[in-house]
Amino acid sequence: MRAKILLLTTGGTIASTATDEGLKPTADGASLLSMLGGDVGCNITIKNLLTLDSSNMQPEEWQLIARTIFKERVNYDGIVLTHGTDTMAYTASMLSFMLPGIDLPVVLTGSQLPIFHPLSDAIENLRTAFAMAQTKIPGIFIAFDRKVLLGCRSVKVRTTDFKAFESINIPPVATVSAQGLVINHALIPKQQGECRLMDKCDSRVTLLKLIPGLDPKIFPLLRLMDCRGVVLEAFGSGGLAFIRRNLVSELGALVENGIPVVVCSQCLYEKSDMSIYETGQLALKKGVLQGGDMTSEAAVTKMMWALGNSSSAAEVAEIFSRSLVGECSE
Amino acid sequence: MRAKILLLTTGGTIASTATDEGLKPTADGASLLSMLGGDVGCNITIKNLLTLDSSNMQPEEWQLIARTIFKERVNYDGIVLTHGTDTMAYTASMLSFMLPGIDLPVVLTGSQLPIFHPLSDAIENLRTAFAMAQTKIPGIFIAFDRKVLLGCRSVKVRTTDFKAFESINIPPVATVSAQGLVINHALIPKQQGECRLMDKCDSRVTLLKLIPGLDPKIFPLLRLMDCRGVVLEAFGSGGLAFIRRNLVSELGALVENGIPVVVCSQCLYEKSDMSIYETGQLALKKGVLQGGDMTSEAAVTKMMWALGNSSSAAEVAEIFSRSLVGECSE
Repeated sequence: MRAKILLLTTGGTIASTATDEGLKPTADGASLLSMLGGDVGCNITIKNLLTLDSSNMQPEEWQLIARTIFKERVNYDGIVLTHGTDTMAYTASMLSFMLPGIDLPVVLTGSQLPIFHPLSDAIENLRTAFAMAQTKIPGIFIAFDRKVLLGCRSVKVRTTDFKAFESINIPPVATVSAQGLVINHALIPKQQGECRLMDKCDSRVTLLKLIPGLDPKIFPLLRLMDCRGVVLEAFGSGGLAFIRRNLVSELGALVENGIPVVVCSQCLYEKSDMSIYETGQLALKKGVLQGGDMTSEAAVTKMMWALGNSSSAAEVAEIFSRSLVGECSE
Repeated sequence: MRAKILLLTTGGTIASTATDEGLKPTADGASLLSMLGGDVGCNITIKNLLTLDSSNMQPEEWQLIARTIFKERVNYDGIVLTHGTDTMAYTASMLSFMLPGIDLPVVLTGSQLPIFHPLSDAIENLRTAFAMAQTKIPGIFIAFDRKVLLGCRSVKVRTTDFKAFESINIPPVATVSAQGLVINHALIPKQQGECRLMDKCDSRVTLLKLIPGLDPKIFPLLRLMDCRGVVLEAFGSGGLAFIRRNLVSELGALVENGIPVVVCSQCLYEKSDMSIYETGQLALKKGVLQGGDMTSEAAVTKMMWALGNSSSAAEVAEIFSRSLVGECSE
């Protein structure tokens, strides 16, 4: 029997057409499918959910998408979610946290050129997504450029090349070749327990990327805007200035005021580890949390999710002490 | 006659030894040179300038280094500057702006493991740096992992691997092989005019990396901390939210208040171009500046330098409309 796949559309470049104000997402799921040409081996049901440039994808949309997936999943073998590339890695990370125990493949895809462009990557990406959606392997994935990536490890690293996404600190979980879709099962985390909808999140999170000379006054100001959690992209393995401009003490003040701070690296690849250098050790003593080898996309969405699903800074710290869905190495 | 090279030391992992508080930069230039083993083909003079973990390298240190290079350069054929890796790309970018018309090679280098570690990359990196410093090719460079990169195109992308740096959007300007140091002269911008010391800069710059859900209130708050310039890492080619949370209008308000805003991409590779999508076009209409294919490191230091060397927002805009030292494609 042919697999039943749900196509959820949200807009993005894949669905865009030229307008006087630049490219805008206008095409619906039927238009996308009409471009596919040959059969992709499954029966597809369409649900048009949003028509957004993904720069406008926000926590409220993540909740809508998570609720829709949670409700619809019982009727399908897999779900393909079309999405703009700009924030796809954030959405994939957040869906991973909001849908623990997900019991079918949810495959995000999109394209760098609209599907209506003669050279578009959209058709290839969609076909990879539909193939992954038929595997029955549970998880949140991104299908792009002949590869399937674990959603919570994905980052958009190129603005125009079709190799838009990279899987950070683990290899892609599947690749397309003359052997078809070759899956590396060992890289795909096993889902734990029944699928739950945990769509609470608190968007009052700030991401700060350090630069030399950053004025430490920015940290007390964050409290004025009612910031509830901070993700810091520090230097290298987690370095922070503490001479002349003392960021370490300001971060400590945030933690003392119940605002959790997690430190990642602004280096794209490899892990942060604040215990190596003096500057990092000083920050750890103040109670800042370690981001390890998480992407910033995963750290930000994990912080929003942790704040929405806990009642104390200690609980947030506990959540950041372990990998929930494969977003970091233990 | 053997070339005369100045070794300027500033600390960093390369000079670090283990202490109770973690690794700390303690070794001086003589200690570094004592580890080199064989002759590197030039006569070396040492000047110990700083002993800093580069997380503590700040605009004040950039000025000190620029002034020292400007003064000392008349006595040497080339300069090697040892520096921590964490902020080396920022320093290399800023020195490129502060020393226009530089008339000798200034080669930054460092290492991922201290030079005293039996497996350290420091010796190899130093030898590459001394080789580049003897070429008499003017410019600010980074020597690392058997490559020489243009300073203002460099980014630290890995926290531990010896391939710590990448040259973004242009290839390395030189590589080490059995042919020795092979230089791609076409990639090295020609220096214009006499060497000048332009060490003024204004550190009151904020770098913000967008996340979905970012509260637009952060932009008016930046004015409370007397921020004078903003670099924004937008999504993809330059996308910004304008539905529900309207970042475009807040950026417009900054510009109206005389605070220049330059938009880059949070994608590591390739260029931003806000004219492609509706969201970016809206921002351009508000007067935000385009970062093109500059790294964030180059954009931040260029903004600090532009603010220090101009008296109006129009002048800053003019500075960002062109490449000064090869930091962006025209």
